[in-house]
Amino acid sequence: MTSALFDPIFGRTAVDAAVDDRAWLAALCEVETALARACARVGVIELATALEIGAAADALAGGDPGVLGAQAVAGGNPVIPLVTSLRDAVRRRAGDGAAAAVHLGATSQDVLDTAAMLVSSRAAGVIGADLADCANRAAELARIHRDTPMTGRTLLQHAVPTTFGALAAVWGAGLDHAGMRLARVRDDLPAQLGGAAGTLAPLHPRGQDVVGALADELDLRAPTGVWHGERGPVVELAGALGGAAVAIGKAAGDVVLLAQTELGEVQEAAPGGSSAMAHKRNPIAAVTARAGAIEAPGHVAALLTAAMPELQRGAGTWHAEWTPLVALLRCVGGAASRLRTSLTGLSVDHGAMLRNIGDDVLDLGHAGDLVDRYLKGRA
Amino acid sequence: MTSALFDPIFGRTAVDAAVDDRAWLAALCEVETALARACARVGVIELATALEIGAAADALAGGDPGVLGAQAVAGGNPVIPLVTSLRDAVRRRAGDGAAAAVHLGATSQDVLDTAAMLVSSRAAGVIGADLADCANRAAELARIHRDTPMTGRTLLQHAVPTTFGALAAVWGAGLDHAGMRLARVRDDLPAQLGGAAGTLAPLHPRGQDVVGALADELDLRAPTGVWHGERGPVVELAGALGGAAVAIGKAAGDVVLLAQTELGEVQEAAPGGSSAMAHKRNPIAAVTARAGAIEAPGHVAALLTAAMPELQRGAGTWHAEWTPLVALLRCVGGAASRLRTSLTGLSVDHGAMLRNIGDDVLDLGHAGDLVDRYLKGRA
Amino acid sequence: MTSALFDPIFGRTAVDAAVDDRAWLAALCEVETALARACARVGVIELATALEIGAAADALAGGDPGVLGAQAVAGGNPVIPLVTSLRDAVRRRAGDGAAAAVHLGATSQDVLDTAAMLVSSRAAGVIGADLADCANRAAELARIHRDTPMTGRTLLQHAVPTTFGALAAVWGAGLDHAGMRLARVRDDLPAQLGGAAGTLAPLHPRGQDVVGALADELDLRAPTGVWHGERGPVVELAGALGGAAVAIGKAAGDVVLLAQTELGEVQEAAPGGSSAMAHKRNPIAAVTARAGAIEAPGHVAALLTAAMPELQRGAGTWHAEWTPLVALLRCVGGAASRLRTSLTGLSVDHGAMLRNIGDDVLDLGHAGDLVDRYLKGRA
Amino acid sequence: MTSALFDPIFGRTAVDAAVDDRAWLAALCEVETALARACARVGVIELATALEIGAAADALAGGDPGVLGAQAVAGGNPVIPLVTSLRDAVRRRAGDGAAAAVHLGATSQDVLDTAAMLVSSRAAGVIGADLADCANRAAELARIHRDTPMTGRTLLQHAVPTTFGALAAVWGAGLDHAGMRLARVRDDLPAQLGGAAGTLAPLHPRGQDVVGALADELDLRAPTGVWHGERGPVVELAGALGGAAVAIGKAAGDVVLLAQTELGEVQEAAPGGSSAMAHKRNPIAAVTARAGAIEAPGHVAALLTAAMPELQRGAGTWHAEWTPLVALLRCVGGAASRLRTSLTGLSVDHGAMLRNIGDDVLDLGHAGDLVDRYLKGRA
Repeated sequence: MTSALFDPIFGRTAVDAAVDDRAWLAALCEVETALARACARVGVIELATALEIGAAADALAGGDPGVLGAQAVAGGNPVIPLVTSLRDAVRRRAGDGAAAAVHLGATSQDVLDTAAMLVSSRAAGVIGADLADCANRAAELARIHRDTPMTGRTLLQHAVPTTFGALAAVWGAGLDHAGMRLARVRDDLPAQLGGAAGTLAPLHPRGQDVVGALADELDLRAPTGVWHGERGPVVELAGALGGAAVAIGKAAGDVVLLAQTELGEVQEAAPGGSSAMAHKRNPIAAVTARAGAIEAPGHVAALLTAAMPELQRGAGTWHAEWTPLVALLRCVGGAASRLRTSLTGLSVDHGAMLRNIGDDVLDLGHAGDLVDRYLKGRA
Repeated sequence: MTSALFDPIFGRTAVDAAVDDRAWLAALCEVETALARACARVGVIELATALEIGAAADALAGGDPGVLGAQAVAGGNPVIPLVTSLRDAVRRRAGDGAAAAVHLGATSQDVLDTAAMLVSSRAAGVIGADLADCANRAAELARIHRDTPMTGRTLLQHAVPTTFGALAAVWGAGLDHAGMRLARVRDDLPAQLGGAAGTLAPLHPRGQDVVGALADELDLRAPTGVWHGERGPVVELAGALGGAAVAIGKAAGDVVLLAQTELGEVQEAAPGGSSAMAHKRNPIAAVTARAGAIEAPGHVAALLTAAMPELQRGAGTWHAEWTPLVALLRCVGGAASRLRTSLTGLSVDHGAMLRNIGDDVLDLGHAGDLVDRYLKGRA
Repeated sequence: MTSALFDPIFGRTAVDAAVDDRAWLAALCEVETALARACARVGVIELATALEIGAAADALAGGDPGVLGAQAVAGGNPVIPLVTSLRDAVRRRAGDGAAAAVHLGATSQDVLDTAAMLVSSRAAGVIGADLADCANRAAELARIHRDTPMTGRTLLQHAVPTTFGALAAVWGAGLDHAGMRLARVRDDLPAQLGGAAGTLAPLHPRGQDVVGALADELDLRAPTGVWHGERGPVVELAGALGGAAVAIGKAAGDVVLLAQTELGEVQEAAPGGSSAMAHKRNPIAAVTARAGAIEAPGHVAALLTAAMPELQRGAGTWHAEWTPLVALLRCVGGAASRLRTSLTGLSVDHGAMLRNIGDDVLDLGHAGDLVDRYLKGRA
Repeated sequence: MTSALFDPIFGRTAVDAAVDDRAWLAALCEVETALARACARVGVIELATALEIGAAADALAGGDPGVLGAQAVAGGNPVIPLVTSLRDAVRRRAGDGAAAAVHLGATSQDVLDTAAMLVSSRAAGVIGADLADCANRAAELARIHRDTPMTGRTLLQHAVPTTFGALAAVWGAGLDHAGMRLARVRDDLPAQLGGAAGTLAPLHPRGQDVVGALADELDLRAPTGVWHGERGPVVELAGALGGAAVAIGKAAGDVVLLAQTELGEVQEAAPGGSSAMAHKRNPIAAVTARAGAIEAPGHVAALLTAAMPELQRGAGTWHAEWTPLVALLRCVGGAASRLRTSLTGLSVDHGAMLRNIGDDVLDLGHAGDLVDRYLKGRA
């Protein structure tokens, strides 16, 4: 899901550390550790055993994801060989009894779903920070240009004047809203534990206690039920990320439009050049942010399609989530990073704005009030 | 957006009255009335004038949508000719002064966006009721079959036993969750008022008061800003409807799978026949509910793509929302209606469930506890 | 699938007669007639019986689609009640023996799939004609403006000069290509006949002869096999329509960009007004064409998702095709119609084009040659 | 775009060598070499210079894609820094004159589009071979099981009997068709050369000759025009890959359904296990093939949305193609690889098939004939 050649262009390196193979492997190992600790807290296994499992899992977390990937083919997910390796390691450290305590009561999907929530939570943290930076930049532009007149353009035709601050406030409001929604979804990401068919059978009668302790260990929400077959958390996440993508894409698209040569109202601090034309001043950060936003709706659609798993656990629908989820986190995170670059140091040409207004009547209505209200609302 | 031939099959007639042409025309007229009343409340126009406008708008609300549609081609939206007709009617009733008070300070998108929120709110009300019915049926199945053993199937292979109640609780939890999310989004649908370029210019200095009064008149949320260019409300709505689609599709798909001849664990109360085979017992309500769910992700993707409008108001992106939004409301509403039919009177064959379990060890773990917890959570 | 209020805005009325309920009902009846005639040609039934069936089907073709739609709910498709009505009518006309010859060897999907191909073929004919008109207009613009200098804009920044003719040639090439692809797919749309499970059982040993005769009667391609479970024809059609949508959207988007106030290089013959601003000259035909194009990719994705039916005939996947297919035909057909309007009488402002070029060096390279080559290629 | 952890599970390693960063870098360098050779063939530059450029490009082809990626951020595409490096290298080898001949007449998009076609062609070659293997396996199953009776299931209910061979023939027909379509599109992939704004200005009057020679050097089709703004080739490719995805997904889904425990009609040669259940026999190759197919429609939609570039060269739309195109090639290629594994050694349980038919009348109609016709058609 990574490309050293293309990712930097789209700012995707910003989220790499949160979603790459090493991050996934680490998260899978953390879940096994947390499960063992949860079982110990509830009294299902010994604390000493949990500590051995945790130590062994820590050691595996630094392994080669490619080795695990190759082993994962036979069973169709990386948890199966990870558990095998972990059991072997624990057996070597602490014997058969301890080995039997590994992955207790869990099925592969429990570990992978929970790890996906960890990975998503961390990536959403990075994305949220970039969204906040973008929103702060938009708010700053709104504040500075509260009274800077510009042409209002509807259907891309001159309408009546407004201010650049009012437009920047629209960007900011969208980015703030998207950031808040993503944060809300992030705070609600649940742990998963259901066992082979969602009954928590081997942990009975302490299953629900283990679930709660697991969530607590990982700082995830304790789920109200087993969501192997009810993909609400993934759907909510996809929706929030899709919303972030379009908030970013809206602002980036506007920068691209306002930077058009004939308009010349804004320019990025470090516009891009060309392999053929020395004079080019492409708003390249906005262009590449926009590209990321264009990509997002397809991933959202894929995740919705995958969100109707068959019976107790899906036959391909579950597996179909992994790639689009990571791709969505990466394209949105990258777009946020690129938009931040675009808005940072964006130069605004008041003269061009006035020139473009021409002889239109300068009645700015509530433009300034809307900026004030926006700024007050986020204070 | 309607088809008398196909819509009944997918249950779409259930939401027709909320989203059809007459509903849209009525909503557009309501918005013009509410705007006039809001202006009067704030003191921008006379109450008598507002009453005349309201009366004239009421008369237009029962008109022929096709006439308005034909007139709408020239300007690209139905508000332009509606306002012309409304001004003419008010002029005839109350003179030029009153006519000038029609559509005061508004642009077409204000009226259409606000009408879209009214239409969506009403449709979401219908859909929400059907979702609640579905969820109640699922909860009832969960309660009744709390302890009915069935095979747990993962990747469509026998895993370990669970209960049918636990599966129904998963359906119910998804439906409840989708319903709550839709209700939350519905309660948050805002009115729109920004004027030609989003500055509320002609209403200055009373613009923001008019916005508040407009929202109050229509029982919509007062927006914190102008959302001509920030389509958060549409994106949230699309996400909630997409989430509802998959919650429905999940349950419907499971009914189809459990009704397979070899499994024979459930049967609809009124299974469908065939034009070629007299013996067929197709779970046709679930089949057609599932079809609706399959259609939804494409509409969500279209709405996300459209949600990056150009500058102050989009050049085609705004127009691109109308058809997918209605199509999404209709396919989700229809699917909810069909799933309700499927779950109502669904017969559950305990014997078949036991037979399919065969010799597997009957350790049901927390299956019953999960049902209890689910039922308690919704009490 | 129709809206008298919104469809005219998007030009969808242009394809209505080809895809509306009456067109579907007529097509379903034509298929039953053609099946009877095919059976008679092959000698499976009497010609007199086929004529009676045809007469009865003709009478049903003018019926009320809403009545059939309501009857279709029980079985999940309109063919089941249509066959019942047709059998009843034939029984009244010609007795039980003739009634038994109705729908011989067919299953509902045979009739609906074949009718879908008829409907699609006719709609594609209308769309193709509009695409050809669009391409002809683009070619005319390319010819006239072969040597009209304009600024080349890449990443929406001035690059180096080109000619407007060269841009129009790009539009035309895309439209020609899309039209040819659609025509090719249209010529390849197959009839469908497989019977209950795709074995043509009741028609054995004359089944394949009947298939050939059926296709011949309807001027469709004789399929090489039964495609109940292999949706290649629908997938190809979706792809060709998606391709047409983007060829239209590309040209429409460019008109919108070139018509921007600051650029002012083109203007539609009948630009649209505004409910708030008397001076507005919106390129509304292009704007609404673009809206149609934005909607299309979601429908294509839905049709692809539906194109993986379960076993012999899908459980909801087949049903999920109908609405998106019609919606796609309508949005593409409408967009083609709107683009034709946009390009017809498009005024091109040479002066503005020169002014926008400014002092850039006027080296037009092969711009004229590319126009010549394009025009020669389509001659 | 790669993941060592997840890709093997989905068979994506099969296409890695064709689409990974090294493949892209090599393709970019090949295009620069081919352009130089084409210029030399046409006489625009010296052959000796072209040879120097080729040698320098070869040396760069083995470089670190990550270095180029980091350099690519400033301009938004990897061609800009590649050309800088190449010019520097050629300057060192052969002086300023030779350096000036690098990238002659080209813009970044020319090189990247042409490289994308090379990469796509090679990946499509790999995918085509896997599709052919899948189709051959399906044909073999059709041949062997021409007369093996199985239950026909429609809407997932028993309909009437057919043969397993007839079903395998449907799979095979779909795979053959998808493979042929992909091969046809592959044979039609064009080179790209237009220069800064699509006029081939610096190469005038030899531009079109250079285009022809460039295409010939790379064994791509000579384009009829410049397709910077007309993305037909990408749209066709996306459509063919989408079609391949669903042909694969159809067969894979059927394997999953037939392998259900209660049906037990097929079993993969190496079914997958579980981290929780020792007895599991998951048809994991089919499950993961299906997951890939579920992912594809979203990528197709993204590529269609991106296929409406702005004016002479798109502002983000072009950039938005790269990631989805590679992701689509990888998910389809992986799915083909997994399906091949699934169908290779698929064991078919005649007894289970007969048992599931039960007392249904065994009228197999033309099932065998359809198999014969299919096999004959591909001979």
